[in-house]
Amino acid sequence: MSALFGRSEPVVFAGAESRDPFAYRFYDPDRVVLGKRLEDLLRPAVCYWHSFGYDGLDPFGGRTMSLPWAGGTIADFRRKADAVFEFLRLLGVPWFTFHDRDIAPEGASLAEYERNVREMAGYLGEGMARTGKRVLWGTANLFYDRRFMAGAATNPDPDVFAYGATQVKTAIEVTHQLGGENYVVWGGREGYETLLNTDLGRELDQLGRFIALLVEHKHRIGFKGTILIEPKPQEPTKHQYDFDVATVYGFLCRYGLQDEVKVNIEAAHAVLAGHSFEHEIAMATALGVFGSIDINRNDDQSGWDTDQFPTNPAQLVMPFYELLRGGGFTTGGLNFDARIRRQSIDPRDVLLGHIGGLDGCAKAAIAAAAMIEDGALQRFVDERYAGWDSAEARAMLSGKESLEAIAARLGRKPVEPQPRSGQQEYLENLLLRYQ
Amino acid sequence: MSALFGRSEPVVFAGAESRDPFAYRFYDPDRVVLGKRLEDLLRPAVCYWHSFGYDGLDPFGGRTMSLPWAGGTIADFRRKADAVFEFLRLLGVPWFTFHDRDIAPEGASLAEYERNVREMAGYLGEGMARTGKRVLWGTANLFYDRRFMAGAATNPDPDVFAYGATQVKTAIEVTHQLGGENYVVWGGREGYETLLNTDLGRELDQLGRFIALLVEHKHRIGFKGTILIEPKPQEPTKHQYDFDVATVYGFLCRYGLQDEVKVNIEAAHAVLAGHSFEHEIAMATALGVFGSIDINRNDDQSGWDTDQFPTNPAQLVMPFYELLRGGGFTTGGLNFDARIRRQSIDPRDVLLGHIGGLDGCAKAAIAAAAMIEDGALQRFVDERYAGWDSAEARAMLSGKESLEAIAARLGRKPVEPQPRSGQQEYLENLLLRYQ
Amino acid sequence: MSALFGRSEPVVFAGAESRDPFAYRFYDPDRVVLGKRLEDLLRPAVCYWHSFGYDGLDPFGGRTMSLPWAGGTIADFRRKADAVFEFLRLLGVPWFTFHDRDIAPEGASLAEYERNVREMAGYLGEGMARTGKRVLWGTANLFYDRRFMAGAATNPDPDVFAYGATQVKTAIEVTHQLGGENYVVWGGREGYETLLNTDLGRELDQLGRFIALLVEHKHRIGFKGTILIEPKPQEPTKHQYDFDVATVYGFLCRYGLQDEVKVNIEAAHAVLAGHSFEHEIAMATALGVFGSIDINRNDDQSGWDTDQFPTNPAQLVMPFYELLRGGGFTTGGLNFDARIRRQSIDPRDVLLGHIGGLDGCAKAAIAAAAMIEDGALQRFVDERYAGWDSAEARAMLSGKESLEAIAARLGRKPVEPQPRSGQQEYLENLLLRYQ
Amino acid sequence: MSALFGRSEPVVFAGAESRDPFAYRFYDPDRVVLGKRLEDLLRPAVCYWHSFGYDGLDPFGGRTMSLPWAGGTIADFRRKADAVFEFLRLLGVPWFTFHDRDIAPEGASLAEYERNVREMAGYLGEGMARTGKRVLWGTANLFYDRRFMAGAATNPDPDVFAYGATQVKTAIEVTHQLGGENYVVWGGREGYETLLNTDLGRELDQLGRFIALLVEHKHRIGFKGTILIEPKPQEPTKHQYDFDVATVYGFLCRYGLQDEVKVNIEAAHAVLAGHSFEHEIAMATALGVFGSIDINRNDDQSGWDTDQFPTNPAQLVMPFYELLRGGGFTTGGLNFDARIRRQSIDPRDVLLGHIGGLDGCAKAAIAAAAMIEDGALQRFVDERYAGWDSAEARAMLSGKESLEAIAARLGRKPVEPQPRSGQQEYLENLLLRYQ
Repeated sequence: MSALFGRSEPVVFAGAESRDPFAYRFYDPDRVVLGKRLEDLLRPAVCYWHSFGYDGLDPFGGRTMSLPWAGGTIADFRRKADAVFEFLRLLGVPWFTFHDRDIAPEGASLAEYERNVREMAGYLGEGMARTGKRVLWGTANLFYDRRFMAGAATNPDPDVFAYGATQVKTAIEVTHQLGGENYVVWGGREGYETLLNTDLGRELDQLGRFIALLVEHKHRIGFKGTILIEPKPQEPTKHQYDFDVATVYGFLCRYGLQDEVKVNIEAAHAVLAGHSFEHEIAMATALGVFGSIDINRNDDQSGWDTDQFPTNPAQLVMPFYELLRGGGFTTGGLNFDARIRRQSIDPRDVLLGHIGGLDGCAKAAIAAAAMIEDGALQRFVDERYAGWDSAEARAMLSGKESLEAIAARLGRKPVEPQPRSGQQEYLENLLLRYQ
Repeated sequence: MSALFGRSEPVVFAGAESRDPFAYRFYDPDRVVLGKRLEDLLRPAVCYWHSFGYDGLDPFGGRTMSLPWAGGTIADFRRKADAVFEFLRLLGVPWFTFHDRDIAPEGASLAEYERNVREMAGYLGEGMARTGKRVLWGTANLFYDRRFMAGAATNPDPDVFAYGATQVKTAIEVTHQLGGENYVVWGGREGYETLLNTDLGRELDQLGRFIALLVEHKHRIGFKGTILIEPKPQEPTKHQYDFDVATVYGFLCRYGLQDEVKVNIEAAHAVLAGHSFEHEIAMATALGVFGSIDINRNDDQSGWDTDQFPTNPAQLVMPFYELLRGGGFTTGGLNFDARIRRQSIDPRDVLLGHIGGLDGCAKAAIAAAAMIEDGALQRFVDERYAGWDSAEARAMLSGKESLEAIAARLGRKPVEPQPRSGQQEYLENLLLRYQ
Repeated sequence: MSALFGRSEPVVFAGAESRDPFAYRFYDPDRVVLGKRLEDLLRPAVCYWHSFGYDGLDPFGGRTMSLPWAGGTIADFRRKADAVFEFLRLLGVPWFTFHDRDIAPEGASLAEYERNVREMAGYLGEGMARTGKRVLWGTANLFYDRRFMAGAATNPDPDVFAYGATQVKTAIEVTHQLGGENYVVWGGREGYETLLNTDLGRELDQLGRFIALLVEHKHRIGFKGTILIEPKPQEPTKHQYDFDVATVYGFLCRYGLQDEVKVNIEAAHAVLAGHSFEHEIAMATALGVFGSIDINRNDDQSGWDTDQFPTNPAQLVMPFYELLRGGGFTTGGLNFDARIRRQSIDPRDVLLGHIGGLDGCAKAAIAAAAMIEDGALQRFVDERYAGWDSAEARAMLSGKESLEAIAARLGRKPVEPQPRSGQQEYLENLLLRYQ
Repeated sequence: MSALFGRSEPVVFAGAESRDPFAYRFYDPDRVVLGKRLEDLLRPAVCYWHSFGYDGLDPFGGRTMSLPWAGGTIADFRRKADAVFEFLRLLGVPWFTFHDRDIAPEGASLAEYERNVREMAGYLGEGMARTGKRVLWGTANLFYDRRFMAGAATNPDPDVFAYGATQVKTAIEVTHQLGGENYVVWGGREGYETLLNTDLGRELDQLGRFIALLVEHKHRIGFKGTILIEPKPQEPTKHQYDFDVATVYGFLCRYGLQDEVKVNIEAAHAVLAGHSFEHEIAMATALGVFGSIDINRNDDQSGWDTDQFPTNPAQLVMPFYELLRGGGFTTGGLNFDARIRRQSIDPRDVLLGHIGGLDGCAKAAIAAAAMIEDGALQRFVDERYAGWDSAEARAMLSGKESLEAIAARLGRKPVEPQPRSGQQEYLENLLLRYQ
């Protein structure tokens, strides 16, 4: 079994000075950070699709890797599930995530698909019971098959909506059955290729109802996890309706779902939408919809989703600072939505990718925690806005003082505001102290 | 007077074959398009700032042009106002737009500023009465002066909030007095340079209250025009809170303003936010917040706001199609937020810019109107979604049918959706027929 | 046979007013433009890979189309070749382009591959003799197979270099045998994913030698066509060595190949490199390396190669103006490196794509030819630089006058340059007259 | 005097644990790194323009800072020069850089300008003698004044060419007189706004001759420093001829200047051209034209030149690795072409910016040196290409073996290349060990 990933010994924490490429240098799951075990703070998860499904295909080239568990039978998917548990054992990570399509053969019909998914869910449940591994979230793949080429919820054909809805029902039930902590919706084809053939308003309404159906069903079956929407601006479609956090928030408000649904923020998607990753986390926190994270990094010079491992701790300090400052995860976690490069054809590469990624996150989280405990940054910000603590200032935001009253006050008592330095250079230097 | 722009004869419509560079080839204000005079359909406006304020400064170079009306006295601003009316006469355009700062000297205090603005508003009113020209919208400049360097509504200093609020009060009152059809808010500094010194949630709340103050005041003074927010993703700030239409919509919902405020969409800003211009119009229409347009075009290879004249009719057909399909303008209009290039130092260049821009829009609007009257595109779209007309399909969107019921129906009566071609190539070819 | 593309009647020119979606509105092959038949001016070509190889796969989804000629046997490739000739007949286009891999089964070894390619070349030759269709260019696919994952010429393994060289030898010989007018090199994997594992200088040298081997072989076998390098900045690799026209020019100079090799410029690649398409043509013309064109268009909001059909004649006027002003094609032509959208699953869609694309190019070329014949633009430019005609001015560029002499002249006869308007707005308006 | 920057005590190295914001944590000038004092390895320089000329202007706002030395008289420029030396003293940095326009009043004529520049050069020389500070490079500003709005060397008016040439003559002579180590050419306006009014080939030739004039003059006056071209893709122009390193290399080859001129690479410009900073350094090294560095960083989400301080050591490790691996600086150095943010209006902010920037570079350089000394990365790369050491492999690159011979060899002895993992994840993890 262990030959699958080139080694049989679990990866363990060996300290920052270790030169063993198969050891963690920063990720010590039992280290207490902000009052929690690091594992409980980060809640790291391995994803089924990239880690056990990627074989090197790209738009200009064929497969470069051969996956020992590839194949379309239930037996193949059992071997794949076994590989997942073995990988989690080696990595020492407690969580995993999956699409329905990742875990079971598609079958010849929707009914057969459903049976396959439920059968494989049983097999996964046994593995989980045996290993103690857990489901961070599940989801349904409504974008790979050609039937979804024009969207699932937003398809012009209501049969596709119904088909997708049925698939989602199975997926959330299976996620619930396996004790999943969340259920994710990524609308890879919920968007358009061209406005020429699209009724945008109608498609938004379809999507609104689709999410509402899911929320209603969640309550019906007693699923206590969180429903999460994952924003992405485009790719595969030219424009996706869940463009970024702020767009999803407006969408949720429009359909009355803002208290029911949160967001799963992916680092690479933030960048593709023209934001920093920390911006998306801070925005979600401010809007009260922060849920979970798909961690990875995008190549800075590539205009598409490169899903690389997050071996960039320096760039992750601010995202983790915003995450932890906002209270950290509740049901969410840190899902490694990252894949090895196409040329990484050694079985150990996928292990190395996760080791570097998890170490990068651990290093960043530890730095961010130090920033929070130190408090210097927060004090700076508090002090910068301290003027708003006066009764006069608060009145302006109270909803009771009118524009007229404000202007009249200034007429009586003129102000000439004195700008103060924003001290960005000082703060950037300060930030470096924690790295 | 007419020497100001190098000629004294008004620009008139001379037909598509005309070779006179100072004639309109497509913009015939009296041509009836979709049942309206083209002038009433387009509602074109000239902006004060670019057309009478730009002198060639750029981040790497000094002035290249000398404006005959430049200067800081009331007399200078009167000469500038005279130039505006002369320009509108030459161009044959009925509308103009302005910031408070464009029309009056700043003065030594807020009180003096207010007096200057009101005095110059009187002067403008006289000119309007004399010429019949009208105000499409007014606004307050809350971004140029150093006091606003960290924002106006979102400033950490409540005095700046109060200062900006007072300025806005004057600006909307003056807009109202001059019969303006809208009042615009562009938050050029309502955003952040770095999250390190920013309390994002607090700033959003400040901005929400600021807009609410404005809405309340509008009702108090009986202003019947529309309040418009103009989205822009960034520049001058690293991140602006009014990123794009969908973001503004979510913001309005959050502060209960979605029925009070609409959007003023700028073509160049759409592109900088990662959208097509037509997307932003279609999205605003779908969300019920479409208001007005700032027309221009961005250089396709430049990552900043280039504000060029919209001499790209082929690219404007779809935006105008979405605009007219959504019902066209009510209080809004087509504000030329465009400026001549830095090397265009001949006084006639600003006239030529507007001629080409207005001609480009006219050509595109005429094409879009033909698309609407022909109906082929709409029929295609209607037919594409026709499946949703069945009772069974509608039930899924009714809010009454559950996920369970949908799945059960498919269990009884399996569907295998048959994808149909999206026919994008056909539709793109069809689109070319109208150009 | 004709059922393959949904019709049996050839597409013919029917005039601008035609509403037949399967007619040309602008592309009349026999229309004389700039003294040539339009077909001879444009030299349009259909490509084997997109038009007969694309089945809808994308990075997030599986096949959406079924190609009747799909399959791995020689018989399948014969059926595919038959389809190509049928398509060229329907479209009325004389040229086609291919990779070795497009026309023949890969076989179990390099030797078998070579035999297959040569056998299929024979079959193609028969078809060409029968139909009169011709090869614009051929090329070798050195990027799809996993053996090329780290490059062909630039591979760290010399065996891959040798393998690729052998494949290229066959490909250029077959191109020669079929009377091809050019041979193209696109280095899809000649670049790097990460500098961490790359010796950039060494790889450049390998690539330089690889191209030189090809040039030497061309002369050895008496191939009179042109060797063309196709620039692309990235994708599939993070960075490709043939980034853009100027980069390729420098590369050619470095290896003494600037008089032997020209460039094949792709519209979408220009945009991805941060240039306009017309820039790349103008640059290649100025540097004396213009060769041929891969025509398509990129989605303006997508950061990857979308290869759409060029149904944007307004945007193509300037590229065609630069092309025709530079003398137009000699051995080169207009290869439609474009593919239908993933949702375009109707067999007629590929036909419609080419019709719109060729019509778009024809319309643009006709407009550009009118610009050239009219001469207004060229006169403007000539007049703008007219100052350089003086003896004094020419002396400065002669290589004989020193900096000292120039400065001394200005000391004796001071100058204060008077800037003149660049008149960009006027010129943009002028450009619109030809559309 | 010291009040100018808010303190009188020089910044000193205090170790990584220091919490004094006005101390270096990594930059110890006397620390020996790769056999050199760190100061001699980095050769840090402060630039005149950003550090003493930026007053907060941006495209949407006016000044935010008041510079005590602002003004147009010789006396003002003397005070500015005094401020420069005081700043260098405080910062403990030995080098500075300047444009002619930075150091002297423009005057009423070119002759007066020249006199002013030479007079101020005398004053600077005295300050240098007194303080021991030195000139890393000088340059002429040929982009700010309106006379250069259409370029200097590439202007359609030969008088502007002559004017710029004269200015350049003075600037290089003054640089030579002050013992400058290099002379830089940044062609901010050497490009175009629109191809419509541009003769690209002619302008390239003008630029080629302009640079040749400079090179010839350098030799005439005995200047031993290096002539450097600074690439930038665009901004202020739409397209600049010195787009990136590879483009400049091709330009130099075209005009026979490749052995005379090197490049000054700016971090922010690399990113704007679609490259990583390390790519540009590695490319320049491979092409033999690496000269010097303008260090800063660009905001990752901004499409224009933001020129921030390089407080991103993690991202600088690879650039410094490529720099040091290529042999480091000879005449070049590390010029801080960075400016404080518009809101940084405290006099100490410019000091803090340089402290963080220099510390960031020091940290990165120390890490890069460790990578070089450790050699693990280089060994990996060497081993990856080791196959090329065989005689058979070398023959293929020798220029003596033909394509035919290579193919024949493979015919006799077939190869089936076995791809090996590129191990990108391993290498990225390895890289983190040095940070």
